[in-house]
Amino acid sequence: MNFLEERIVKDGIVKAGNVLKVDSFLNHQMDIQLLEEIGREFKRRFADKHVTKILTIEASGIGIACFVAKEFGVPMVFAKKSKSINIAGDVYVAEVESFTHMNKNQVIVSKAFLSEEDHLLIIDDFLANGCALQGMIAIAEAAGATVEGLGIVIEKGFQHGGRAIRNLGYHLESLAIVEAMDEETGKITFRQQ
Amino acid sequence: MNFLEERIVKDGIVKAGNVLKVDSFLNHQMDIQLLEEIGREFKRRFADKHVTKILTIEASGIGIACFVAKEFGVPMVFAKKSKSINIAGDVYVAEVESFTHMNKNQVIVSKAFLSEEDHLLIIDDFLANGCALQGMIAIAEAAGATVEGLGIVIEKGFQHGGRAIRNLGYHLESLAIVEAMDEETGKITFRQQ
Repeated sequence: MNFLEERIVKDGIVKAGNVLKVDSFLNHQMDIQLLEEIGREFKRRFADKHVTKILTIEASGIGIACFVAKEFGVPMVFAKKSKSINIAGDVYVAEVESFTHMNKNQVIVSKAFLSEEDHLLIIDDFLANGCALQGMIAIAEAAGATVEGLGIVIEKGFQHGGRAIRNLGYHLESLAIVEAMDEETGKITFRQQ
Repeated sequence: MNFLEERIVKDGIVKAGNVLKVDSFLNHQMDIQLLEEIGREFKRRFADKHVTKILTIEASGIGIACFVAKEFGVPMVFAKKSKSINIAGDVYVAEVESFTHMNKNQVIVSKAFLSEEDHLLIIDDFLANGCALQGMIAIAEAAGATVEGLGIVIEKGFQHGGRAIRNLGYHLESLAIVEAMDEETGKITFRQQ
C-alpha cells in the first residue's frame, strides 16, 4: 500500500451506498502534510509533462490542486459551480452531475484564464462516474488547451468513470483505486497498480 | 503599499457596484507564490497566538487557508455551503448571506472536526458585510472553540463588516483594506495600517 492507501485504511469510513468518507483528512478537514505529499506524488507521476496550469473544480479539489500547482510552479484555476456576478459573460461552460450531491451544476471557467497556449494537468479528489473530469476536459477542449494528464486522489474502480477516460486516450493517474468496499466489515480493497 | 496592495493595484479591476475583481490571482485563477506569501504574512501577524486549526469557508477561502495552515503546521477545516449526503447529521450550522452571489446559504461544519479544545484562526478572502465571518464565529462558538483571530486578505473598509467584528473584541487582521474604489478611473485607495 502507498501512503494514501494506508491513510484511507486508517481513517476512511465505509458507508452505505458505496460512500467512502475521507472527510477527516481530505475533503472537509484537510491534513496539509498529506496534501503536500499528494502534490509531490503527482509531480513525480507527471514529471515528463509540460504543464503550464493546474485545473480543478470547486470545492474539495482546490486544496489538493494548490499543492500540485506549488510543485509544478504554475498557477491553478478552479472551475466554479454557479454563475457569480463577479464573472463576466465570457466563460467556458460545462454541465456536471455530482454523485455526492445528486444534482447537476453548470461549471464555468473565465476565458481569460485558459487558452490554446495552456498545457493542463486536471486534478480532483474523487473519480466515480467521471462527470466532473469530463466537464473539465470539455472546458479544456473549448479553450483549445492541451490536456497533459489527469490526477485523481481516490478513484472508485468499480464505477465506469476511470475506464471511460482512459479509453479516450488520456493519461489518468489515480493515487488509490478502490475496487471494493464492504460497509459491514469496513474492509477496503485497492487495485494493484 | 505592501505586497498584496501592490498586486491589487497591478491586477485588480474595479467594476460597477463596488465589485473588486481579483480573480486573475486570488479567487478563480490562483497565484500560488502569492498565496504562500499571504500564508507567511498571517503567520507573522498571529505569531503570538496558540492556533490548533484553521477554519475557512468554501470555495475561495480554501486555497488561502491551506497555505496559512501549512505555516502554522495545523489542519484546515472548511465550512461547506450545502448539505451533502456525505456529511452525517451531526453538524454545526450557520446561515450566511453572500454579497457576491446575492443569496443565502446554510454553512455546516461536522462536529467531529471542531471542539472546545480548538483554538481557531479564521481565514477568508474577502470581508464586506461580515456575514461569512459571523457565520464562522457562530460555528466556533457552538463548538466551544476559542477564536484566536481572524485573517482576511481584502477588506472593504467602506462596508461595516470589519468594524462590527472588531467592536466585538476580536483580533481581525486584513492584509489590504480598501477605503474607496473609483470605477471610472480604476483608482483604489487603501487604508493606512
